[in-house]
Amino acid sequence: MKLLSPTELESALRDIGARRYHRLHPFHHLLHSGKCTKNQVQAWALNRYYYQAMIPIKDASLIARCDDSAIRREWRSRLVDHDGEQGDDGGIARWLRLTDGLGLDRDYVSSLHGLLPATRFAVDAYVRFVREKTLLEAIASSLTEMFSPQIISERVEGMLASYPFVTRDTLAYFDKRPPQAARDADFALNYCKTIARTPEQQQQVLAALEFKCSVLWAMCDALYHAYVAPNEIPPGAFVPAG
Amino acid sequence: MKLLSPTELESALRDIGARRYHRLHPFHHLLHSGKCTKNQVQAWALNRYYYQAMIPIKDASLIARCDDSAIRREWRSRLVDHDGEQGDDGGIARWLRLTDGLGLDRDYVSSLHGLLPATRFAVDAYVRFVREKTLLEAIASSLTEMFSPQIISERVEGMLASYPFVTRDTLAYFDKRPPQAARDADFALNYCKTIARTPEQQQQVLAALEFKCSVLWAMCDALYHAYVAPNEIPPGAFVPAG
Repeated sequence: MKLLSPTELESALRDIGARRYHRLHPFHHLLHSGKCTKNQVQAWALNRYYYQAMIPIKDASLIARCDDSAIRREWRSRLVDHDGEQGDDGGIARWLRLTDGLGLDRDYVSSLHGLLPATRFAVDAYVRFVREKTLLEAIASSLTEMFSPQIISERVEGMLASYPFVTRDTLAYFDKRPPQAARDADFALNYCKTIARTPEQQQQVLAALEFKCSVLWAMCDALYHAYVAPNEIPPGAFVPAG
Repeated sequence: MKLLSPTELESALRDIGARRYHRLHPFHHLLHSGKCTKNQVQAWALNRYYYQAMIPIKDASLIARCDDSAIRREWRSRLVDHDGEQGDDGGIARWLRLTDGLGLDRDYVSSLHGLLPATRFAVDAYVRFVREKTLLEAIASSLTEMFSPQIISERVEGMLASYPFVTRDTLAYFDKRPPQAARDADFALNYCKTIARTPEQQQQVLAALEFKCSVLWAMCDALYHAYVAPNEIPPGAFVPAG
């Protein structure tokens, strides 16, 4: 292990994104190119809801272990983004408008009863990582946001072009995310480049991003297995209508 | 144990406050009646700083275990109160203006090096309680705020009248607290009255408030022992100048 310059560290992080971010997953290729059935899009939105719902819990967990008031204040904006200022303007509420638009029952979605077990395991592993690893690793695990503006723009464009059951209004969740993600990623990347001053810390940062990419990848694997091929839905998980 | 009506539960909570809140502690009698030395006031402010500094960590810990977006959003206002919107408008920053005004070195205060061990133990016990008990008990442990507007008004009035080294500006921390505390206490009290629907849950709520009163009381005990009588300062703790 050698000490990387901050620029080299950023390059190594971007390289991980280029190789491991879930944009590359076969499920996303299907989703974004219009090759999913409506049922598969429903399964994606329903499972992804759990990830969305746990993000403020993940972020509050990070704030709860941070003794720097300035970082807590910065990180708090993520709580605002996801829980909103009012009842219906946060990311979670906007995600439920997506599942509404896809014809899913809102109570069923938020009950989490239809979740794939692997979705739950992956998301819970992420929350646990943020609670138990170092603050540096917890912050570094958010760095997938460096890559999310691209996947969001591909997703919105591809889904609007391909699916008659998807409208711009259904996808309103994604309208606000790119600037929020860019702001958050800038902060987290700058923090990691500044704080990771030993080869060991830099390797922790890189491993944290790899871990987080694996969380997102595992969620796609589970969707593919259950709803694409072999299309074997685990007992208890969401069974599409018809 | 019998089931209390919501009004009876509130009365039982107020009764705990009337008997156990740290307003009754001999150290506060001295502090508010002008009988503390400047050194004793310094010791109070320095030790209380740790409590202030840990409050957002306690509150984020509560948010981190709450799966209700509306409660998280409500509780988030406490993070705003203590960490501020900007760098210097939060409760922690205002508390440091109090320790500044008392002639304490800011780096020394925030280093926590001068803390009484019992202060640390009491505050850490509070944070642990919020992390490990039920959400209902975590919320109930905040109910000392029902009683804080009274102690704050006695404190500000008493200290301004008695100590030439204390100005209204030094005590600016307390200006904002009564309305914040009243808003927070209303929410928490209403939550407990609504959610505690079994005798067991009501006893948990009452025990949580007793626990929290004990945290605040133990902090006063430690100050009294170290800086009033027998005036035995534990090794390593703040030693007043002169």
